[in-house]
Amino acid sequence: MEKPHFLQLFEPQLENPILVEGLAGLGNIGMIAARHLIECTEAKPFAEVYAPYFPDYVTVNKEGICRPPRYRFYVAKTEKNHYIILTGDSQPSMEDGVAHYDICDEILNFAAKYGTTRIITLGAVASSNASNEVYISATSEALAKKHLDKGTTIYSEGKILGATGLLIGMAKKRGWKGICLLGATTGFGAERGVGLSIFKTLTSILEEDIKKETEEAQEQTQDNKDDKTTEKTLK
Amino acid sequence: MEKPHFLQLFEPQLENPILVEGLAGLGNIGMIAARHLIECTEAKPFAEVYAPYFPDYVTVNKEGICRPPRYRFYVAKTEKNHYIILTGDSQPSMEDGVAHYDICDEILNFAAKYGTTRIITLGAVASSNASNEVYISATSEALAKKHLDKGTTIYSEGKILGATGLLIGMAKKRGWKGICLLGATTGFGAERGVGLSIFKTLTSILEEDIKKETEEAQEQTQDNKDDKTTEKTLK
Amino acid sequence: MEKPHFLQLFEPQLENPILVEGLAGLGNIGMIAARHLIECTEAKPFAEVYAPYFPDYVTVNKEGICRPPRYRFYVAKTEKNHYIILTGDSQPSMEDGVAHYDICDEILNFAAKYGTTRIITLGAVASSNASNEVYISATSEALAKKHLDKGTTIYSEGKILGATGLLIGMAKKRGWKGICLLGATTGFGAERGVGLSIFKTLTSILEEDIKKETEEAQEQTQDNKDDKTTEKTLK
Amino acid sequence: MEKPHFLQLFEPQLENPILVEGLAGLGNIGMIAARHLIECTEAKPFAEVYAPYFPDYVTVNKEGICRPPRYRFYVAKTEKNHYIILTGDSQPSMEDGVAHYDICDEILNFAAKYGTTRIITLGAVASSNASNEVYISATSEALAKKHLDKGTTIYSEGKILGATGLLIGMAKKRGWKGICLLGATTGFGAERGVGLSIFKTLTSILEEDIKKETEEAQEQTQDNKDDKTTEKTLK
Repeated sequence: MEKPHFLQLFEPQLENPILVEGLAGLGNIGMIAARHLIECTEAKPFAEVYAPYFPDYVTVNKEGICRPPRYRFYVAKTEKNHYIILTGDSQPSMEDGVAHYDICDEILNFAAKYGTTRIITLGAVASSNASNEVYISATSEALAKKHLDKGTTIYSEGKILGATGLLIGMAKKRGWKGICLLGATTGFGAERGVGLSIFKTLTSILEEDIKKETEEAQEQTQDNKDDKTTEKTLK
Repeated sequence: MEKPHFLQLFEPQLENPILVEGLAGLGNIGMIAARHLIECTEAKPFAEVYAPYFPDYVTVNKEGICRPPRYRFYVAKTEKNHYIILTGDSQPSMEDGVAHYDICDEILNFAAKYGTTRIITLGAVASSNASNEVYISATSEALAKKHLDKGTTIYSEGKILGATGLLIGMAKKRGWKGICLLGATTGFGAERGVGLSIFKTLTSILEEDIKKETEEAQEQTQDNKDDKTTEKTLK
Repeated sequence: MEKPHFLQLFEPQLENPILVEGLAGLGNIGMIAARHLIECTEAKPFAEVYAPYFPDYVTVNKEGICRPPRYRFYVAKTEKNHYIILTGDSQPSMEDGVAHYDICDEILNFAAKYGTTRIITLGAVASSNASNEVYISATSEALAKKHLDKGTTIYSEGKILGATGLLIGMAKKRGWKGICLLGATTGFGAERGVGLSIFKTLTSILEEDIKKETEEAQEQTQDNKDDKTTEKTLK
Repeated sequence: MEKPHFLQLFEPQLENPILVEGLAGLGNIGMIAARHLIECTEAKPFAEVYAPYFPDYVTVNKEGICRPPRYRFYVAKTEKNHYIILTGDSQPSMEDGVAHYDICDEILNFAAKYGTTRIITLGAVASSNASNEVYISATSEALAKKHLDKGTTIYSEGKILGATGLLIGMAKKRGWKGICLLGATTGFGAERGVGLSIFKTLTSILEEDIKKETEEAQEQTQDNKDDKTTEKTLK
């Protein structure tokens, strides 16, 4: 295996789906936000991707079952939109930039097969103090400014690292439209609060009809304030 | 040479062989167990694999003869099973994860040609104190639990590094069944005792008819307690 | 994306164009000189190249618009010559030598399509003290000596790193003719003065008719002496 | 350029040529010995190889002429043998093992086209004190022992690093016959004396008729004892 390998679980019927990315990363903010979306939309996994530049080990769960690292694609349909949600608990090494370019390109190819031309990536920027501020960058100035009324701040003159940055950057090169929502994190531990802020902004941008679930998720997060394991909160 | 290169020594006739892997690694436990199996079953080497991501040197033996690093495939037939046993004295660099994925995939392709759909990988987990405990992970919960009566303990919520992990993980993705037996090691020197424990568990799982040889091997190990060179013990 | 990807903005009509390279690098000298040339010749971007070994992030501008790292090709036509000017604000990692070879080869292939057989690369050599000295290296001794009357000094028994070196070296292997102009820099900050010296030598070598603009550029540089941002000076 | 690129200078007519390798490396011993052989046999360069994993810079000579790093193949014919002599002033990075495998394989392919089935590699082993001892390793025990009368010592239970090791190891895998001659070096500076010892052993193994030149070369080396630049001694 020299190239990413896609494993199709079932074949969904989608119309102009929006690709939403939230992978493991800085503070796991993107992943947390993506998992909130998966829960609230009752999204189902329909494909997996394995790649040779993922970590070279298998993870073993409580029952002793092993599996290699992977990304998963979930499908969700709401009244307003169809979604392909990409999440995963690992990323290529920060040093392996070529791997990042390669898998991002393959992911865009995969989403393009379903007619995707819009993308939302969810991630984080390192900051000396965490806040619930939500920063926005986009493929055009109009798109960046369009959502300022949802409480976002323009992310100005900076860099967006890893898949969160490359996916939207390479999507732009294909002529897609997209926005990127970024939370601020000090980088210590999972930032569930910031992840939830990102999710709330995301849903207010996307549609009204999953707002109710957001509020429920918020309460759940409050309850689990002392819980360090993101996984447990989100499952 | 950019890809692994297989050198066929002879073409064995096999029926549903089980692939057993024991490579050099942490405490050389997997390699020691695999070599016990090779001896007891009088397995013969039938293929070799060379790879560009093996160490870039040749090793020279006592007689001055040089050869590049390689893996070897042995064939064994017992009354109960046919085996392809994979062993070798080197591995790709721990930093080169892509190499691990690539060679594991090629090894599974190679074994698949002989009809393999079952795999047993033998390795180690790092531990603060060595013990003769044998941990088990598997491609399914049923398979992990099936062999608890052989004195194994479920390996729970951990990672399995390198070929030992990736081979079973990628075999699972192909729909194969498999188990992984792991010894605990502090990582100092060759763990001949732990390797033998793994081998004993392996044979009690596989079949009864090679038990006798196991006991002989055990005595041999006792005799060589002060001998630091694994190679000498096993040849 | 495993290979560099060229994005054509429009298709220029060119006759025996000279490829002029000035990329980001030591003191950004080559890039500064190339941008002076772009301004003075009113060159227009006609192609872009994206590569998997560029940094794996997107840059975001003041307006929040993101884009991946890229090189740009500009086209310019003067009375004397046609030019393809290559510039860009990033380079592959210094550690990834294979990437440097690969993209340089692709760039030469690209320029060759337009009939290019002459190349001028612009860069820098590290020095303990910056000076306005302009060093010259070439694909032949005659060519190196030809321009000594323009105040250049033969660059003797040294190395030329990165794209500035490899492009002319690999061009030579193809039978092209070329020169390389090098400024000396201590490596601290953008060397606008040295960049301008290189540009002036370049134009005196290439042709007389863009000399006037050079002098204007010089004045502009004087005005911006305290301005640390190269970008602002050059736009 | 992702693969090594061969540039043919002219097409020699050869019968069963012996491939002799002496590249830059530890103490430059192999390169020094190969250059002695080139001089004494009046060998002519007939091909060059460029590779993307060579250092990513060009070297500039006294006259200001630049060229990329390369290996060169020389052809020599004596009364007894035809030779392809491989030398060069750089090697892939020690960290890039895959590059070493790849270029060695390409070199063997290249030599095979001329009917080569015998190889002699020249190199060094690190030692705490330099000596004129010449160590030998071979593709078979008989071949290693055959030349003990020339004052060589069996190199026993060690490793041979880089091209010197891989070329003979991979040649063996192809069924070729070969020996490797190794000098001992502390690794400080160019070991001209050791290089000459290797060369003398080499010629006594290969043939008698170039012995005279060896003695002349020895005198030349004595004369240049204080000269630190290998290049100058050898040209």
